[in-house]
Amino acid sequence: MAPQLDAYFKQVDSLSDAFIERLRKAVAIPSVSAEDERRPEVVKMGEFLASELKSLGAEVELRPLGKQPHKEHLDLPPVVVARYGNDSKKRTILVYGHYDVQPALMEDGWATEPFKLTVDDKGRMYGRGSTDDKGPVLGWLNAIEAHQKAGVEFPVNLLMCFEGMEEYGSEGLDDFIVEESKKFFKDADAVCISDNYWLGTEKPCLTYGLRGCNYYSIEISGPGQDLHSGVFGGTAHEPMTDLVRVMGTLVAPDGKILIKGIDDLVAPLTDDEKALYGDIAFTMDNLYESLGSITGIYPDKERTLMGRWRYPSLSLHGIEGAFSAPGAKTVIPAKVIGKFSIRTVPDMEIEAVDKLVYKHVNDAFAALGSKNKCHVYLQHAGKWWVASPKHWNFTAAGKAVEHVWGVKPDLTREGGSIPVTLTFEQATGKNVLLLPMGSSTDAAHSINEKLDKKNYIEGIKLLGAYLHYVAEEPMNQG
Amino acid sequence: MAPQLDAYFKQVDSLSDAFIERLRKAVAIPSVSAEDERRPEVVKMGEFLASELKSLGAEVELRPLGKQPHKEHLDLPPVVVARYGNDSKKRTILVYGHYDVQPALMEDGWATEPFKLTVDDKGRMYGRGSTDDKGPVLGWLNAIEAHQKAGVEFPVNLLMCFEGMEEYGSEGLDDFIVEESKKFFKDADAVCISDNYWLGTEKPCLTYGLRGCNYYSIEISGPGQDLHSGVFGGTAHEPMTDLVRVMGTLVAPDGKILIKGIDDLVAPLTDDEKALYGDIAFTMDNLYESLGSITGIYPDKERTLMGRWRYPSLSLHGIEGAFSAPGAKTVIPAKVIGKFSIRTVPDMEIEAVDKLVYKHVNDAFAALGSKNKCHVYLQHAGKWWVASPKHWNFTAAGKAVEHVWGVKPDLTREGGSIPVTLTFEQATGKNVLLLPMGSSTDAAHSINEKLDKKNYIEGIKLLGAYLHYVAEEPMNQG
Repeated sequence: MAPQLDAYFKQVDSLSDAFIERLRKAVAIPSVSAEDERRPEVVKMGEFLASELKSLGAEVELRPLGKQPHKEHLDLPPVVVARYGNDSKKRTILVYGHYDVQPALMEDGWATEPFKLTVDDKGRMYGRGSTDDKGPVLGWLNAIEAHQKAGVEFPVNLLMCFEGMEEYGSEGLDDFIVEESKKFFKDADAVCISDNYWLGTEKPCLTYGLRGCNYYSIEISGPGQDLHSGVFGGTAHEPMTDLVRVMGTLVAPDGKILIKGIDDLVAPLTDDEKALYGDIAFTMDNLYESLGSITGIYPDKERTLMGRWRYPSLSLHGIEGAFSAPGAKTVIPAKVIGKFSIRTVPDMEIEAVDKLVYKHVNDAFAALGSKNKCHVYLQHAGKWWVASPKHWNFTAAGKAVEHVWGVKPDLTREGGSIPVTLTFEQATGKNVLLLPMGSSTDAAHSINEKLDKKNYIEGIKLLGAYLHYVAEEPMNQG
Repeated sequence: MAPQLDAYFKQVDSLSDAFIERLRKAVAIPSVSAEDERRPEVVKMGEFLASELKSLGAEVELRPLGKQPHKEHLDLPPVVVARYGNDSKKRTILVYGHYDVQPALMEDGWATEPFKLTVDDKGRMYGRGSTDDKGPVLGWLNAIEAHQKAGVEFPVNLLMCFEGMEEYGSEGLDDFIVEESKKFFKDADAVCISDNYWLGTEKPCLTYGLRGCNYYSIEISGPGQDLHSGVFGGTAHEPMTDLVRVMGTLVAPDGKILIKGIDDLVAPLTDDEKALYGDIAFTMDNLYESLGSITGIYPDKERTLMGRWRYPSLSLHGIEGAFSAPGAKTVIPAKVIGKFSIRTVPDMEIEAVDKLVYKHVNDAFAALGSKNKCHVYLQHAGKWWVASPKHWNFTAAGKAVEHVWGVKPDLTREGGSIPVTLTFEQATGKNVLLLPMGSSTDAAHSINEKLDKKNYIEGIKLLGAYLHYVAEEPMNQG
């Protein structure tokens, strides 16, 4: 029989202001993992989480990860691990989230202060990290608090793993998870991660697949220092000229990856798989709304979803070292670093992709006949992941969604990568579920990132409900 | 007979510490004209110049130029105009310089604080603006002071015009010069500008030609906001993909401009002109030293000098709106602005070049078949200039160089553009001379910009000596 959740739900509603206040405090800490000078803020955010968890009665530990690779002057932020409940008769669920965020500057075009949670009249809560991933992380804490205040027994033992380097490739976390899978995490019966998004804005989903991400840098250098283009233009090989040409060979305007051999690594589309896309609740208008434009590549929903989920993509993110400010600067940059990443899918192995990328870039640069130097390297990589949606972990989550939102969730895959998902699956050997809280218009990684109040509050109910259904699901391995 | 300059020279030597102190004060004012928030510092620098001139007994006026075009919230910095001496029996020389500087940040890689003049044991005086153009501008003030303290009569009437927007296209100055050529500047018999550099590090030169500069922006936009490359990669047209491809069509790695029709605008090389290049004191090692690398395009001095002086060049300066910081950000930028400029030579008219650039960029973008939007426009332009080196203005300067440095100067052209040079020639109808103070390794517009103490002090002697020879030269129109 379905669990009795009314008391818990009521409590979540009556605590909603307090829960929004908790999110406001978290967003106010600019825990940007990509900016060295912000590292103390990242640590501060981890300590904030730890103290909140302690006050809820959880066992908490701040686990150091040592120095940051290639930046030995920097300590990696600690992993916050916690346990709530230790009843051998209950199932144990391991949840993961991250407390670091993407960079954000007012100059980037934010309408409100990125690190000040700002709620508008439509209940949209704007702020860096609101939806990625501070809202969902606090969701677990809020679920615990609501159970306590409602006097409802917590249905499972909860293990928590919150990291502070997710937006910078989860440096140092993999080894930690592998090690702790035999220790702190050893009791886990299944894993749940809330760090992705609904496909649209109306219908919840459960996610069983992710693309991977290989992030590369192409460094081209020549002169000993930046040069005046008037004095040296026309006499010296210019790194920007070379870099722009090399970057231009990577991908076509229609998104087709031009690196020889990449297509051969992609698993062919089967008829069964193809049939799945028709029923997904998604329209081209969903895409256009979240894009903020009608610049989609494909006219139809099916091919668009495949482009996001099951085919690789290559994006050029920017150039470090060139003139990037407004105005006019007549400089010849001496060293420029082009950044791009490839979203990977079955069966693209990280190293196989590296090999093709290095060969392509080095060949493309050699073809230029430039006297400058070119060095291409992988900044970080996370492999793609596909899980079984028939496991009790997914069944429980599906029932919880139906209970909270009154609709069966879509079973989806995601275009984004959450590298640790695969690590958890491999290290624990358990089923991993992705249970999103936010919607497609939340603009994670963009300006004006937000989380809708409704998604936050109902999301807290959902996380709690999921744990209750987990407690009742019969064993199966999916 | 040669003028008696020993007393003046001695005085310059004995005041050298004070003159370096004056430069230190000027460098300490970060008068960056391209950064809106630094505008008050630019104004402060103009006021510093005015007060120094007043204390030397010159008539000084700070002339407003009104609002900055396209930035109506900003006042343009004032033009500092001054007159020293008003004797109708003397010749009147109009000198120009600029008191604004290029942007400079410690993070760019400066070895010392860019706005703190730092003198090393080799007498290299590091600091933004030291050589471009605060050193030369103060050179005129120092020459006046040394004459006064040496009790040597000042040989000419000196008119001065110092602007604060040179590094941002000399906004507003042209109309001002045209107007004042009939008023404040009406007595000018010739013009002298010290805002360029020796070709090498040992031999001074006089410069009679400059390349022009057309500075362009290519703006490509699509999505309403930056996007997460995982969520949207492979489903939408990406502005960076388009921009990099368009920028890649502009210039070849060997510096050849690929915009159809540009070559046809370039005046053909005559045998007479070709013959001039052999004698110029310049070696490939001079180039390599100033480059800080051996990444020159041509193996020989002649073709290299032609590449700098008499052929056009195109440089890609950077991209605004893309990810430009260190680290890894998986963003799809929504709007990116590519910046590039073309150095122009006889007979390339500004508008003729615009027309070819716009057509090329629009055609190149159309060929991509992208749904994004592209807009190409001219940010600012300055025409090339070539003067007569046989005029008495040049003869006098040549004798002064020989007197101070003991060597006949090379007659050179420059790759850089000083747009006002042409404006002064056209507005006053007088001969314009470029009399450089700094050397080829001064790294103007780069990190670690410097001026050698010797070039500064001997340069002050040179400016004064030039005025004495000017006073003695017979009339000729060159």
